[in-house]
Amino acid sequence: MTSAPDAVGFDAFAQAFRRHAAGVSVVTALGVDGRPVGFTATSLASLAAEPPLATFNMALTSSSWPAIDSTRRVAINMLGQDDYLVARIMAGPNDRRFDGEHWEAGPGGLPLIIGATAWMVGDVVAATPVANNIMIAVQIDQGGLGEPDEPLLYHERSFRALGAEL
Amino acid sequence: MTSAPDAVGFDAFAQAFRRHAAGVSVVTALGVDGRPVGFTATSLASLAAEPPLATFNMALTSSSWPAIDSTRRVAINMLGQDDYLVARIMAGPNDRRFDGEHWEAGPGGLPLIIGATAWMVGDVVAATPVANNIMIAVQIDQGGLGEPDEPLLYHERSFRALGAEL
Repeated sequence: MTSAPDAVGFDAFAQAFRRHAAGVSVVTALGVDGRPVGFTATSLASLAAEPPLATFNMALTSSSWPAIDSTRRVAINMLGQDDYLVARIMAGPNDRRFDGEHWEAGPGGLPLIIGATAWMVGDVVAATPVANNIMIAVQIDQGGLGEPDEPLLYHERSFRALGAEL
Repeated sequence: MTSAPDAVGFDAFAQAFRRHAAGVSVVTALGVDGRPVGFTATSLASLAAEPPLATFNMALTSSSWPAIDSTRRVAINMLGQDDYLVARIMAGPNDRRFDGEHWEAGPGGLPLIIGATAWMVGDVVAATPVANNIMIAVQIDQGGLGEPDEPLLYHERSFRALGAEL
């Protein structure tokens, strides 16, 4: 490694994130018209324990944003290794993400992913737009456990299992 | 899985995040007094590609916050599987995180982790406090590649390797 930069701007960002791996979740919401929306997220993170706060990022152009913006209420589904096909569905064409038997209505009608390892629901308590995208904080109020599977990971456009303890 | 909640508040949050895994990075900054600060982060995420934006979360009580708040400039070091000892050092006692040969001064004096798989530096362009914590967006302007190692992961208080492709 050298401390001299070898890339600038987008290239520096892209080459660094190609060496990053992320846990995979599905964020869902229920539109005011009663239609479920959602997307596969690789940005889920913990922000605080007291109160319990989680964060994720999304594009303001996302098909899910109008529902989240108007209801301020989301479900966050943690995906396990066995859920990689669901991760693909929920990252595919918007209008087909809820075609199938991979979800059910949870508290308040929020879509929950069947087979997820856990889920939690909460209110959007902060949302900061930055350049056509938005970082969102959710205060968790309830949740449940699902399949006792190991977490699903995403790296370099592939879904991966979790490996050995170091 | 059942869609009936089995936990509320912190318990729902904690049981869900116990089933999450995250990539590991080290965020550093240079205090106005010239002293390096930093911490191991499991919240790094991509926010946008155009302009290139990354996000991470931290506590406002963190020893690194005054330097980040005053300089608005950070380095983000992506850790590989071989870097788990550095991840421990940078999550250990504040006043000993830069004792040793695991870092060097990069652009503008920002501390870079030797052995990281990549690094990027940029300006804090948004910072939203939420209940004693803060979510931060950084616009990346330059960076470099390091060791061609697979990413380091964190799950259930252990460091883990990346596993098989699914």
